[in-house]
Amino acid sequence: MRKVVISLGGSILVKGEDDEAYIRELVEGLASVSDDVRFIIVTGGGKLARDHISIGRRVGLDEATLDSMGILATRMNAWLIIGAFKCVDVYPRPFTSLEEAIIGASAKKFTIGGGTHPGHTTDAVSALIAEMWRADLFINLTAVDGAYTADPKKDTDAERIPEMTSKELVELVSGTVRGAGSHSVMDPLAASVIHRAGIRTMILDGRDISNLLSCISGERTHGTVIAPGE
Amino acid sequence: MRKVVISLGGSILVKGEDDEAYIRELVEGLASVSDDVRFIIVTGGGKLARDHISIGRRVGLDEATLDSMGILATRMNAWLIIGAFKCVDVYPRPFTSLEEAIIGASAKKFTIGGGTHPGHTTDAVSALIAEMWRADLFINLTAVDGAYTADPKKDTDAERIPEMTSKELVELVSGTVRGAGSHSVMDPLAASVIHRAGIRTMILDGRDISNLLSCISGERTHGTVIAPGE
Amino acid sequence: MRKVVISLGGSILVKGEDDEAYIRELVEGLASVSDDVRFIIVTGGGKLARDHISIGRRVGLDEATLDSMGILATRMNAWLIIGAFKCVDVYPRPFTSLEEAIIGASAKKFTIGGGTHPGHTTDAVSALIAEMWRADLFINLTAVDGAYTADPKKDTDAERIPEMTSKELVELVSGTVRGAGSHSVMDPLAASVIHRAGIRTMILDGRDISNLLSCISGERTHGTVIAPGE
Amino acid sequence: MRKVVISLGGSILVKGEDDEAYIRELVEGLASVSDDVRFIIVTGGGKLARDHISIGRRVGLDEATLDSMGILATRMNAWLIIGAFKCVDVYPRPFTSLEEAIIGASAKKFTIGGGTHPGHTTDAVSALIAEMWRADLFINLTAVDGAYTADPKKDTDAERIPEMTSKELVELVSGTVRGAGSHSVMDPLAASVIHRAGIRTMILDGRDISNLLSCISGERTHGTVIAPGE
Amino acid sequence: MRKVVISLGGSILVKGEDDEAYIRELVEGLASVSDDVRFIIVTGGGKLARDHISIGRRVGLDEATLDSMGILATRMNAWLIIGAFKCVDVYPRPFTSLEEAIIGASAKKFTIGGGTHPGHTTDAVSALIAEMWRADLFINLTAVDGAYTADPKKDTDAERIPEMTSKELVELVSGTVRGAGSHSVMDPLAASVIHRAGIRTMILDGRDISNLLSCISGERTHGTVIAPGE
Amino acid sequence: MRKVVISLGGSILVKGEDDEAYIRELVEGLASVSDDVRFIIVTGGGKLARDHISIGRRVGLDEATLDSMGILATRMNAWLIIGAFKCVDVYPRPFTSLEEAIIGASAKKFTIGGGTHPGHTTDAVSALIAEMWRADLFINLTAVDGAYTADPKKDTDAERIPEMTSKELVELVSGTVRGAGSHSVMDPLAASVIHRAGIRTMILDGRDISNLLSCISGERTHGTVIAPGE
Repeated sequence: MRKVVISLGGSILVKGEDDEAYIRELVEGLASVSDDVRFIIVTGGGKLARDHISIGRRVGLDEATLDSMGILATRMNAWLIIGAFKCVDVYPRPFTSLEEAIIGASAKKFTIGGGTHPGHTTDAVSALIAEMWRADLFINLTAVDGAYTADPKKDTDAERIPEMTSKELVELVSGTVRGAGSHSVMDPLAASVIHRAGIRTMILDGRDISNLLSCISGERTHGTVIAPGE
Repeated sequence: MRKVVISLGGSILVKGEDDEAYIRELVEGLASVSDDVRFIIVTGGGKLARDHISIGRRVGLDEATLDSMGILATRMNAWLIIGAFKCVDVYPRPFTSLEEAIIGASAKKFTIGGGTHPGHTTDAVSALIAEMWRADLFINLTAVDGAYTADPKKDTDAERIPEMTSKELVELVSGTVRGAGSHSVMDPLAASVIHRAGIRTMILDGRDISNLLSCISGERTHGTVIAPGE
Repeated sequence: MRKVVISLGGSILVKGEDDEAYIRELVEGLASVSDDVRFIIVTGGGKLARDHISIGRRVGLDEATLDSMGILATRMNAWLIIGAFKCVDVYPRPFTSLEEAIIGASAKKFTIGGGTHPGHTTDAVSALIAEMWRADLFINLTAVDGAYTADPKKDTDAERIPEMTSKELVELVSGTVRGAGSHSVMDPLAASVIHRAGIRTMILDGRDISNLLSCISGERTHGTVIAPGE
Repeated sequence: MRKVVISLGGSILVKGEDDEAYIRELVEGLASVSDDVRFIIVTGGGKLARDHISIGRRVGLDEATLDSMGILATRMNAWLIIGAFKCVDVYPRPFTSLEEAIIGASAKKFTIGGGTHPGHTTDAVSALIAEMWRADLFINLTAVDGAYTADPKKDTDAERIPEMTSKELVELVSGTVRGAGSHSVMDPLAASVIHRAGIRTMILDGRDISNLLSCISGERTHGTVIAPGE
Repeated sequence: MRKVVISLGGSILVKGEDDEAYIRELVEGLASVSDDVRFIIVTGGGKLARDHISIGRRVGLDEATLDSMGILATRMNAWLIIGAFKCVDVYPRPFTSLEEAIIGASAKKFTIGGGTHPGHTTDAVSALIAEMWRADLFINLTAVDGAYTADPKKDTDAERIPEMTSKELVELVSGTVRGAGSHSVMDPLAASVIHRAGIRTMILDGRDISNLLSCISGERTHGTVIAPGE
Repeated sequence: MRKVVISLGGSILVKGEDDEAYIRELVEGLASVSDDVRFIIVTGGGKLARDHISIGRRVGLDEATLDSMGILATRMNAWLIIGAFKCVDVYPRPFTSLEEAIIGASAKKFTIGGGTHPGHTTDAVSALIAEMWRADLFINLTAVDGAYTADPKKDTDAERIPEMTSKELVELVSGTVRGAGSHSVMDPLAASVIHRAGIRTMILDGRDISNLLSCISGERTHGTVIAPGE
């Protein structure tokens, strides 16, 4: 049995366009993967979280409370994916702790949840689950097609890094500022957990499902692969 | 000590315009009420819930799962109000059961939560809490300024009913179709609970806060008042 | 795998006579069904609940509190059935939420519980579980042998309805008064959930176990069958 | 503030006769006690538990499962008392752990619950709560008017013991056989906890409420008083 | 499928010497047992618990609170064993109730936890689980190689009892004084549960793993065997 | 009412020497503070956690599982402090979430707990609570008497920094390596939360209780004070 953890960015999941088509395609694609692969999927909050956090911040909510609110948004997104499986080989509620994710995955091919505690991103949750579960593969689905030498939206010279070590990933993401809803290719805590746990990792474009399926089956075509090590 | 339960429609709370100003005004208004009034506030899901439910329904989620998702939206709205009180005399998390609401209200002036179980609207949750807590007053804040003889959006002859009995309310709302996110002046289960429990009830325009405060203090000016009885 | 939800009326389960023999026969009968059928069984409160609710109502308890008390009675009945399986292929405690029922059913042939929230009958709980679980069959076991054109205890002209649509069921049961411990062939919320979810349904005499087993295996002999549709 | 724990035998609470009058009198009596006394009340299962346990034992349930079922009966009885207080200065649900009892008692004059774990009688639960809460007084309400030198129902020479030490109580009750629903003046674990914790204890006739109130206020008239010590 | 419950004394598990080697050997040994044996393992608190309880008692903590603290020590030991299985066929967190133990064991070969409630030793928890689970074998791993006619540490004439009945075990252990951290060959409640449930039982030297494995496979070599009966 | 959060390093709490005297002095000191100060105290794991984590790491446990084990050690330390208050104005169990800490503090002068989630130090938990609770003062009790320009154990030129800004604190602690049981003057996440939330902070020698009490009352004598700001 192979164990795969997917961190599914909320911004990928619900963009306000094609959501229905994307979710159907994702769920059908994953369902088609061989049954000896088990998945734990961690959904982010995306637009849903950001909009509400934005109102909350203006009303004067503190960041830890905004995180608590954002966690509920990640679970709403988890329900969307759970429901899309129509009760076939899916753990029937969003997990709310690391251990519940692993318990779910011992009975079902698909187990899905979101954030678990204020102060942790869903990337960090994904990485901690991958460590406890001793996952074979960690996949970070984002809005870009891999890790870049710089932010590709701001710097036209930015180049995608096809391969790197987990140590290099830790160095790449260090210095990122924490804050509910902030972005980067991966949360620093997630990167350091992946590094210490020695988990093979991929950063992929979350909207390219055929590429995702190829990467899961081992015939990778596009993205960034992070190998454990210095 | 007077006990007041407020069912705060999600569509009132987050309209996508003036949200910040409205929430601040609401919270400041309620904070100004005499400390011998205690409040349990039940927030609806509103646009946040409806948008996500709409995606979910298109993806093929069943209604009970959509309800589970919608409950999280109501709790996100509850966090907005909780946070706006800035940790002053407020129970510090959304309650998730009838009893937790009442426990919260035994220590704090304000206790806030949303839905508690699939198949129940937040109106029904509010009414069940009001019954168990033996509330003195139940206030339903909606997008219109009271119960009407017909739907005022569709029928220009519709007239606001200034006063009615709880039995009449039950009759008015019977026949309403159930379904996640559907609307009416009050959920039929809520109406029947109010009637059997004999709780004084008001239906008010949720955006008119000075009117709300007047109604709480007893100098009512505008809306529908429901007196217990046949 | 076929999925069957059974709403087992408490009045069927514990009548104060033959209880031991009935429970043994029921459990042995269900255990003999093919292992590719999975069951979620929802037990009612019956006499146990009614007696205590009756004392409580005289002492002045409100209806929502009486419901909370009654839910415990339904779980005592669930323990009776769970224990009767003697730890063989049964989820080992009464579920307390819709999702826990479905989690149990993913590991075990039999999962049993009672009420989950004040304001919902065990019929309604059964129907919501059937919807979320996407059950193939919903069986309502009652004290009569099907739905009748009128109450057969009061009206000698009442005739059993052998077949009807879910829409017709909704119409038949509408107008029933809510109240802890009140009776009818099926709770209106349960009927409307069954209708919206399109679940094949049977109303059977709960004491006729050989008929029950025939109905499960498809060679139905006696009762009312409700087909999804208008 | 004085802290009083009452172990209220289920057989006292629900006898099938005068229940309504007894519960009203008990609740009104306790409500009339000075507000600087706080109560934690632990309700037994009584007839309700025994009847169901008896069916369960005949169906073949093991004793630990019967205990789990009996705990629900104790909580149904707890709901009866909670509800009778009509939401006035009462913790609004049956506690389910020792700590929850103490949390409840920090906010409310009355906190009520039943059993907490298979293998413990409600006497034992009461004594453990009394120890953790550092109660001033432990009252065991039973069907007889104190501890006797022998079983007064069987031995006409049995004499009530007006005063004894906690060490003597431990010796009196040692040798009692354990088993769901079995009886004696006090469970041996309860007696040993009372002894080690040094808690003043009374064994009183549970149906004599005026005597109970006198004992609480210190003007004791009738029963057995156990003083901490050898 | 055979069901085995092991009560693993904390003093066996962590002695402050060879801990790593012992835990590895234990886990590897149990993993080598045929997959049609399922294990529920209950870990004691041992030195970890005793040291902290000792500080706590000097600071003035009551015994029930010390028990609550000791339960956490038993769960720390449970985590040690869980972690040593490296996420292979193990329930991924310490169970915290009897039923959770049984739920875990329905999905996994190994399910591990510690204490569940103040006032119960881990022996008692083990026995209650064995009863509810209808275990085939209960193994008590201790610091001595069986039950003796007297305490072998104090009395050089003490002889190991190779075989006895459960009734004889109950008599042997009766009279033991209760108190957090106190010792004897088996807790009296555990003995009485084993006796009433009729579970075959062994008392073995916990450090002799090859003997343990022989006993599990039925080729017993050394220890005390307790046969159900008078 | 002033709100004070204390992060009480486990290494301060249980050193294996004078523990009893220290805990008594600490508890008596804090009890003597004016009742209009409310405390939430977060206990670390200290030697208890480190010893067990050390065994676990040698047996091959992953870091996230070691964290889960360490959290239980922090709660054992919390029980020590809770018990030392002897049920006087203390929340009677270790909190297990940020919100439970705040709920406890709304009813009691002292609320105590430890870690809440793998991947967070108890410093981080303390800071998140301080933010949500809108604490007036955050005190970090450590084994040294403040923040130094370098590690005072390794560098004799290290100088204590009497005053600094929260921005300077963030810079001082950045770059610290994460890992269960690792040390520094404050966890980087804690520092960044303090900075963003603008909470006045002190780093003090945890064994100097009279200094601690002076700092709480405002007549500070010794340590490092961190003022919110750049």
